[in-house]
Amino acid sequence: MAKNTNMRWRLPLVCLLWELAMIVLFGVFVRFGAEADAHWEEEKRHMNLTSDMENDFYFRYPSFQDVHVMIFVGFGFLMTFLKRYGFGAVGFNFLLAAFGIQWALLMQGWFHSFKDGKILIGVENLINADFCVGSVCIAFGAILGKTSPIQLLVMTLFQVTLFSVNEYILLNLLHVKDAGGSMTIHTFGAYFGLTVTRILYRPNLEQSKDKQGSVYHSDLFAMIGTLYLWMYWPSFNSAISDHGDAQHRSAINTYCSLAACVLTTMAFSSMLQKKGKLDMVHIQNATLAGGVAVGTSAEMMLTPYGSLIVGSISGIVSTLGYVYFTPFLESRLHIQDTCGIHNLHAMPGLIGGIVGAITAAAATEDVYGKEGFIKAFDFTGVYQTRTPSIQGGFQAAGIVVSLLMAFAGGAIVGGILKLPIWGDAAAENCFEDGIYWEVPEDEESDVYHMHNPDKPASP
Amino acid sequence: MAKNTNMRWRLPLVCLLWELAMIVLFGVFVRFGAEADAHWEEEKRHMNLTSDMENDFYFRYPSFQDVHVMIFVGFGFLMTFLKRYGFGAVGFNFLLAAFGIQWALLMQGWFHSFKDGKILIGVENLINADFCVGSVCIAFGAILGKTSPIQLLVMTLFQVTLFSVNEYILLNLLHVKDAGGSMTIHTFGAYFGLTVTRILYRPNLEQSKDKQGSVYHSDLFAMIGTLYLWMYWPSFNSAISDHGDAQHRSAINTYCSLAACVLTTMAFSSMLQKKGKLDMVHIQNATLAGGVAVGTSAEMMLTPYGSLIVGSISGIVSTLGYVYFTPFLESRLHIQDTCGIHNLHAMPGLIGGIVGAITAAAATEDVYGKEGFIKAFDFTGVYQTRTPSIQGGFQAAGIVVSLLMAFAGGAIVGGILKLPIWGDAAAENCFEDGIYWEVPEDEESDVYHMHNPDKPASP
Amino acid sequence: MAKNTNMRWRLPLVCLLWELAMIVLFGVFVRFGAEADAHWEEEKRHMNLTSDMENDFYFRYPSFQDVHVMIFVGFGFLMTFLKRYGFGAVGFNFLLAAFGIQWALLMQGWFHSFKDGKILIGVENLINADFCVGSVCIAFGAILGKTSPIQLLVMTLFQVTLFSVNEYILLNLLHVKDAGGSMTIHTFGAYFGLTVTRILYRPNLEQSKDKQGSVYHSDLFAMIGTLYLWMYWPSFNSAISDHGDAQHRSAINTYCSLAACVLTTMAFSSMLQKKGKLDMVHIQNATLAGGVAVGTSAEMMLTPYGSLIVGSISGIVSTLGYVYFTPFLESRLHIQDTCGIHNLHAMPGLIGGIVGAITAAAATEDVYGKEGFIKAFDFTGVYQTRTPSIQGGFQAAGIVVSLLMAFAGGAIVGGILKLPIWGDAAAENCFEDGIYWEVPEDEESDVYHMHNPDKPASP
Repeated sequence: MAKNTNMRWRLPLVCLLWELAMIVLFGVFVRFGAEADAHWEEEKRHMNLTSDMENDFYFRYPSFQDVHVMIFVGFGFLMTFLKRYGFGAVGFNFLLAAFGIQWALLMQGWFHSFKDGKILIGVENLINADFCVGSVCIAFGAILGKTSPIQLLVMTLFQVTLFSVNEYILLNLLHVKDAGGSMTIHTFGAYFGLTVTRILYRPNLEQSKDKQGSVYHSDLFAMIGTLYLWMYWPSFNSAISDHGDAQHRSAINTYCSLAACVLTTMAFSSMLQKKGKLDMVHIQNATLAGGVAVGTSAEMMLTPYGSLIVGSISGIVSTLGYVYFTPFLESRLHIQDTCGIHNLHAMPGLIGGIVGAITAAAATEDVYGKEGFIKAFDFTGVYQTRTPSIQGGFQAAGIVVSLLMAFAGGAIVGGILKLPIWGDAAAENCFEDGIYWEVPEDEESDVYHMHNPDKPASP
Repeated sequence: MAKNTNMRWRLPLVCLLWELAMIVLFGVFVRFGAEADAHWEEEKRHMNLTSDMENDFYFRYPSFQDVHVMIFVGFGFLMTFLKRYGFGAVGFNFLLAAFGIQWALLMQGWFHSFKDGKILIGVENLINADFCVGSVCIAFGAILGKTSPIQLLVMTLFQVTLFSVNEYILLNLLHVKDAGGSMTIHTFGAYFGLTVTRILYRPNLEQSKDKQGSVYHSDLFAMIGTLYLWMYWPSFNSAISDHGDAQHRSAINTYCSLAACVLTTMAFSSMLQKKGKLDMVHIQNATLAGGVAVGTSAEMMLTPYGSLIVGSISGIVSTLGYVYFTPFLESRLHIQDTCGIHNLHAMPGLIGGIVGAITAAAATEDVYGKEGFIKAFDFTGVYQTRTPSIQGGFQAAGIVVSLLMAFAGGAIVGGILKLPIWGDAAAENCFEDGIYWEVPEDEESDVYHMHNPDKPASP
Repeated sequence: MAKNTNMRWRLPLVCLLWELAMIVLFGVFVRFGAEADAHWEEEKRHMNLTSDMENDFYFRYPSFQDVHVMIFVGFGFLMTFLKRYGFGAVGFNFLLAAFGIQWALLMQGWFHSFKDGKILIGVENLINADFCVGSVCIAFGAILGKTSPIQLLVMTLFQVTLFSVNEYILLNLLHVKDAGGSMTIHTFGAYFGLTVTRILYRPNLEQSKDKQGSVYHSDLFAMIGTLYLWMYWPSFNSAISDHGDAQHRSAINTYCSLAACVLTTMAFSSMLQKKGKLDMVHIQNATLAGGVAVGTSAEMMLTPYGSLIVGSISGIVSTLGYVYFTPFLESRLHIQDTCGIHNLHAMPGLIGGIVGAITAAAATEDVYGKEGFIKAFDFTGVYQTRTPSIQGGFQAAGIVVSLLMAFAGGAIVGGILKLPIWGDAAAENCFEDGIYWEVPEDEESDVYHMHNPDKPASP
């Protein structure tokens, strides 16, 4: 039982070596794109632009910052609901995301921004890197409290790589639309994480059951995460859409979907409890399903009422998932899903992929206008002859590919993480900050001290 | 005393029926406006626009997101100051706002964005919906801790309706300027809420007196709300102002007013305590009065020093209100105002309306420029002949109308909420999350368990 | 020992007199700049602008709001890590910043925006005022918990004044570039604060040692501050850069530097602890050093890999500082640095100044383009003949001037603050909110009540 969780040499070694690798690779490959380079004045003339306002920075930077908040505060604080794992939730999320965005800039850059041997970056690359890391934060939710920081970094390295490959297949080979990432971020991230946690199954986890709950204030901290995710989700789904109407439309659709989702979540949360009381777990999580479920279709002509329908359904599905599906997954399939990402990301992500396929298949020149139709689905070049129904088929194929990548990738990465060299904690020490963090002495630390004989209890 | 507070069927029924109604009404009425519709390319040519940047999305979306944060995090966390009502504060605010914005999109849409049988929405509608719900969040502050979630939803339905009618009277019939909503949002919202809480007067509320205070960390959670409201208020007051100088000027005036307000609040908070200690209640609330009080005039040529004067006065008035007026209202007028909205929204809202009327009446072509004068007050069409002093008179009339609507509306809605079918709690169970929420067991729950025999006390 | 900490007349007097002075000075001097004035329509024609989008408001307002959040929530909550000083951290930061921005608008306005006897303000002035106050927030970190609110206001008055003088010398006389303020904000602010705390040395501070630590939830509150500073730092460093590529580039460089900094901070935090556990103090602070250290050079062609290198180094230096340097400063040099600003702002600020000097000296027309080269360093007018290496020399001189101003100014202001009239607390009452704040009774207040006999312990 006395596992060696001492990180003193392993964690620094991994962090420093990888940061060194990032520096070398950035030195070789990464340069400023034309809109961030000091040659911009010449570029502006070259592009016939009259105003600095036309720099992509001004179209996307506000959305980028909102997405940035979602990744670091949103996901970080959403996971602080555990009574004694707040440092790990916020801190490890911070660590893996900070590493992940660097690696994502490279991986996505090679696939999408590579020109004359260099990756040319701008604000859209920063958004995409944050998106990519978002899928890692999702997977982190499944294994929260049960892994060492090194395992998280290893997982991040592999998951970012696989994400980029999957994204390339979807966006470039299948020519699929997925601006808000229902498939690439949520479906892939969630099923990847669920597969990993299945491989890392811990049969004795009930030994730390007392720490798997929340306390009053940890639930309030989690609501900070929830609300920032909820409020900024319109920015998430619109951040990389086309300039103009597409960004505008994405924000409106997402706003509508999320609003509806809150009502159905509250309804089912109350209905499924004997005394009709609301459960913070549902409010913290299922209210967000509406954002996931319009990820693919938000930039399309889903229409506001379509968004309300999708949001309503996803809130119901997600809440039902927390009540019935999560216990089933754990007891029958041995999938221990700490944050319930199956309910918040996996199922709503699938809904999002399907809604996107249907919305694309139903598109007409009448609804989009002749130009808008071509622009919305990028039916140019070799895709000039694609029809909406074929596009719908490819969208559906995108779901399947994402699932396959997630299962296969998750199985392999889970296997790697199972190696006994990464310093994960024993089952009775899971969900406990004291293993990897210096924790202050305070009146709330009773639970903590029971399992941490190193430190004297507070007087 | 054993009131039936079980929400199991009532809350789900209300939520689901109303969401269904939203879906139907959105399906019939709501469509994308021209700037969010896929026909935008044609529209751009039609409007002679050369750049996507001219899409209203880029003028208003950053401000919209700031307003969104104010409604959900700002108001939500501001109300978490109560020691055992944090879930209700954040959670019910979330519920009512998510419902309210949907209904507001419809109500305001019918009045302001209705064309050929359809409501055409864009980012400005989202901001206005958030604004409208802001007035409900204000009213919620008066009845915080004393109502059931169903009562809140019923109140939201009616208040959004009345808000929209009042707003239509002010903006369209009286042709009044009120971009930051001193009258439409704050005066109306606050006096509406105060009237409702007067009707719902609970004579035995001292039975839950022990829960009406804060604990150390709940005061810090509330400061999150305070600061986000304070920081983003310049966005609130400028969000729907005219493009260009008006948005710019609104932000500056509000910034100045709020800065001054902090100093006078601190001064009076210290001065009014025997030992000169600062009171968190004042810091959390009265520091925001400066934003309320320039709501009407921020987009006018109030000037920075004018803003400092208004901010200074409103901080003083608001702090005095907390010390002297709130106890008076409760003991003499039986108005139980949990958050002190009379001090934060009602009085500063009145100040804001009056300052707006004076600033409008004092406007000259010299100060505004010939074009600016016409643009600032929209003196076009049938209003071509309006003079500043007449405008000032109409502004003043706007205050009176808002007050009348608030009193009449509040009385009616208060009467409806008094019906014994909505599941509100008994007086001794007010300000207690355990009535409507599953609450985790933790060391802070002693107070809670005294009144909640269902749950065993923590060991 | 029984010092008189009663603020009842002193604090209100100072606040009200100073606010009155602000009103008078604003009335005499401050007016709206052309882009916020109602004459904007005429101005637009005058400047040949075709769109309201060209108003500086739209280039800078989103960044302004991010900076605003950093000053009030970022710095405010970062300092809430102390177990019993959360009110003081957030509340006094709020007070001094709200006063400071008003005085900064005037001071910086006289130096930079003065025309025909008036200070003409716009959104850039608001950002600069926030920046200026940022340096006061930094200095506050050194003396956190040991000073009265009046001392903080006095310090703010003087520090804002000195900041503006120093900034004028650097930007106007030395023609130095420092958009993110490595020198003007961080180096100056930190060494100023360290000098003040040296002068205010308290030999008996170990009497309040028990209150100098954190509790579990106070560390989580502090992480709110950390994350908002970290996420929005790209906005901080790019907020006042030139429109277009410079803002874009600043954001990218800062993003990269900060990401690298997190990894090296985590590495060294673990490495320097016997058991390899991570220390929240490092995560809360040293992860931000990367933003400080690219403050000067972010808008230059530092390149993404250059940013990774700078970020990596600053994370290491800062973490080493917390482990070795802070105890040394206290025991040998009698510098009591509550928040460790020497590690987060002083050393990284120096690194930032040096990196800026090197990057400027290494600039070539090849890398920047002919136009970009002149624009980036503003080599126009009398500076037409300046070469990069001379610019590098002036940049280095800027560091020296900032240091001298900080030491001299800090010594004088420290001397003033040492006068026994400002109501600071006795050593055993430091780091304790109960001295200046009404503190609610709760289960966490045991420590507090030991030293505050006025209030009965909770039952």
